[in-house]
Amino acid sequence: MILPNWLTKRAELSPNRIAIIEDEKEYTFAQLLNDVEILSGRLSTLGLKKGDHVALALRNTYDSVVMIHAMQSLGIVMVLLNTRLTAREMAWQMEDSNSKFFIYDELFADKAQQLETISSIINTLTLTELKTLPSGSINLLSEFDLNDIHTIIYTSGTTGNPKGVMLTNGNHWWSATGSVLNLGLDVQDRWLACLPLFHVSGLSILMRSVIYGISIVLHEGFEPKKVNLAIEKQNVTIISVVSVMLQRMIDELGEDQYPSSLRCVLLGGGPAPKPLLEECMDKDIPVFQTYGMTETASQIVTLAPEYMLTKLGSAGKPLFPSQLRIEKDSKEADANAIGEIVVKGPNVTSGYYQRVDKTKEVLKDGWLYTGDLGYLDQDGFLFVVDRRNDLIISGGENIYPAEIESVLMGYPTVKEAGVTGISHEKWGQVPIAFVVLESGHLASEQELKDFCEQHLARYKIPQRFYMIDELPRNASNKLLRRKLLELIPNAIQEQ
Amino acid sequence: MILPNWLTKRAELSPNRIAIIEDEKEYTFAQLLNDVEILSGRLSTLGLKKGDHVALALRNTYDSVVMIHAMQSLGIVMVLLNTRLTAREMAWQMEDSNSKFFIYDELFADKAQQLETISSIINTLTLTELKTLPSGSINLLSEFDLNDIHTIIYTSGTTGNPKGVMLTNGNHWWSATGSVLNLGLDVQDRWLACLPLFHVSGLSILMRSVIYGISIVLHEGFEPKKVNLAIEKQNVTIISVVSVMLQRMIDELGEDQYPSSLRCVLLGGGPAPKPLLEECMDKDIPVFQTYGMTETASQIVTLAPEYMLTKLGSAGKPLFPSQLRIEKDSKEADANAIGEIVVKGPNVTSGYYQRVDKTKEVLKDGWLYTGDLGYLDQDGFLFVVDRRNDLIISGGENIYPAEIESVLMGYPTVKEAGVTGISHEKWGQVPIAFVVLESGHLASEQELKDFCEQHLARYKIPQRFYMIDELPRNASNKLLRRKLLELIPNAIQEQ
Repeated sequence: MILPNWLTKRAELSPNRIAIIEDEKEYTFAQLLNDVEILSGRLSTLGLKKGDHVALALRNTYDSVVMIHAMQSLGIVMVLLNTRLTAREMAWQMEDSNSKFFIYDELFADKAQQLETISSIINTLTLTELKTLPSGSINLLSEFDLNDIHTIIYTSGTTGNPKGVMLTNGNHWWSATGSVLNLGLDVQDRWLACLPLFHVSGLSILMRSVIYGISIVLHEGFEPKKVNLAIEKQNVTIISVVSVMLQRMIDELGEDQYPSSLRCVLLGGGPAPKPLLEECMDKDIPVFQTYGMTETASQIVTLAPEYMLTKLGSAGKPLFPSQLRIEKDSKEADANAIGEIVVKGPNVTSGYYQRVDKTKEVLKDGWLYTGDLGYLDQDGFLFVVDRRNDLIISGGENIYPAEIESVLMGYPTVKEAGVTGISHEKWGQVPIAFVVLESGHLASEQELKDFCEQHLARYKIPQRFYMIDELPRNASNKLLRRKLLELIPNAIQEQ
Repeated sequence: MILPNWLTKRAELSPNRIAIIEDEKEYTFAQLLNDVEILSGRLSTLGLKKGDHVALALRNTYDSVVMIHAMQSLGIVMVLLNTRLTAREMAWQMEDSNSKFFIYDELFADKAQQLETISSIINTLTLTELKTLPSGSINLLSEFDLNDIHTIIYTSGTTGNPKGVMLTNGNHWWSATGSVLNLGLDVQDRWLACLPLFHVSGLSILMRSVIYGISIVLHEGFEPKKVNLAIEKQNVTIISVVSVMLQRMIDELGEDQYPSSLRCVLLGGGPAPKPLLEECMDKDIPVFQTYGMTETASQIVTLAPEYMLTKLGSAGKPLFPSQLRIEKDSKEADANAIGEIVVKGPNVTSGYYQRVDKTKEVLKDGWLYTGDLGYLDQDGFLFVVDRRNDLIISGGENIYPAEIESVLMGYPTVKEAGVTGISHEKWGQVPIAFVVLESGHLASEQELKDFCEQHLARYKIPQRFYMIDELPRNASNKLLRRKLLELIPNAIQEQ
């Protein structure tokens, strides 16, 4: 399926509409296209061609928006790096994704420097360096093939190494279409983006902006006060957040109320605590709970406005282009019975980059086996019970226990490791580790922490380490992570 | 590309929203689905299977809406007959389209009776007869393939015989998507459908209703007073009309104004007279001029709201998923230069049913050569100068001169015939005919009119007949229809 280049099309249809608002500065779609053309001209001197992979470490800035659109307009596959990763983690993803270049924001210069010592990727460039390049020919694609890969975003899972989720132009298109058929669209809409652009939750806002022709209020990070001010003063109509952010926004709001111009708070990133939802109800905040993941190019299930009150705590129903069923013992489960959440739709990834086996494991006949547990109530509303594969969600970031365990097991005196999440007031959850040492050896908590810091992004580092004699396992020797928490009293006694 | 069944999906997402309002009666999406299931059960006893063709002669009623959705849900290709056609014309389309059944509204019983005497299609059924059938098994498709044919709608052209435009589920989907990205979407939207459901302009409203989840206010015919009352009292937000209808609405409105709830008057069916547009401006009527045709599954070019005033008379720019260029001498024309309008997009038909040659003639590399003339101004806005192939547009109905000429030439004493349109106060245009008789023979105007009535729908019958000695032709003997009008004074003298 062929569509015109989204950005050139949008600039043709509504050149004077505001595309991006960054602090006090406003950029129209015509300006955005112009800046994308200039950048593309410079990028063309690097010898990059359609289909090449380029790793990016970007902040939430207008320059990053220009970069993302330039890449799409050149048909270059973006490997969007979580900028909180360590240099080692970034290097791994770059190599795994066969990235030819690494382009980064100056803010991450330290990491880039470390990276050069450990990685074979030598083509690195900063955004500022790019601006000094001469201008080559400008050859934006006039058309986008919906089957072409747009992004590779890494996500972990039950195995130690992250996998690169491939998202096509079409995945992003259909995600945007599914969303608009649920949320509606007004020419005055403004979407506040304070989630990172390297996450699909932030990236999808960029895609919607050009497809819908609406403005983005772009925040570099999440500051509750700044967000509340934007909602109050800048006519923000929609905002995407995770629970921990929404809680902080409400705390900051105090006794005040949001203006009625705020018509949708899209709440993703894991099941929302009921007290938070109730607080929102009391304050007339229009919360739309959603369920989604990188593999579905953001939301795939969203609670429609008319059910906000009667189905509190539900993630809603699958968006118009998508389908969902609950599977239990390889059969479709009855209403209210818990099973695995299985989804299908044109927004669903075609698989993991160069991981045929992993792809086959989770994608069957077009259906994606999410590993998440949930049920459909008698009216067909989804309730997510537990995120997949012991996933820990900390402040909206996904943390996969297996990845941390794999790092810990790399420490010389560690024999086995098990990681799970515990509740945390501010972040929702944080990881904690259980470690079995080689017999006759010792390791201090600090040593393990230091080791993790070399290999893992800060948010993944376990907040506590418990030394134990044996991990809980089932008959087939599979680690029972959910049983780890039961060990805590004993572990404390042992320490 | 696979999507869930649109109607079952819509009934799952928003069962209690109003789908159809017919006079005082309201039907929710849940009721609509229920009625579609009942009808499908009955249809299944006829032995119809997915991919079969069924010809339909329907009025704008709730029953027709149920029929159209039932057909789509069974995967049956609908051949939508213009109910103003003669029995002979209908029979031709049914045979050409290989229709297995003919299902019609009782109102057209006379035509059906005539039809049985001239056609080999023996499987005819009325909507009422269908209701007496026993209920068989209900097997709605759970998914729609966007590549499957949904509708065949006949349109004529430069040659005498009409051609069946094939429209897929995908053509309708993308048409709806393109429209929503231009017009926006509100959960409170209500679209008034007073254009016939057998035209793509009316049919597309049905498609949008289930895809968007919005209500249709369904009118059986066009009565300006009833339409104005609905706009005033029933919160209609969008209405699709052609110029002659809009003029009558405004005349009927008199000194009154439309409420602000009416946010879009989608004006199609040929270039709009400037005085009408100016009158709408004076009265603050939000007119969205559009350009489209059966082959593009309705609008493909629409004027965005922000240009309504500054680009008066323009049809706008191609919708987000579509592209357009002006071709002159096989090259892209400069700004302001008149040439053929050529369009591309996922809403464009894949061709004419069993007319490979005709299809190849107009579809090249995915681009549809419309035969219409127009230009793009310096800002890229389309101005349609002249409809294709001497097309006559009379009250929103397309009339192809070649079709009428071909009928006239079937009259024993007629040697040659040429047909063109003249301006008409009420209908925009009406056809008139120029006839060359076999030498030494005579034919009266009344005889020719009577003959036409046997073969042509009433709106196609020439309003005047001029007997002349010779038709204007070019060097290669091609009829120059545009020169016919110059003959009128002479013709009158000759009579």
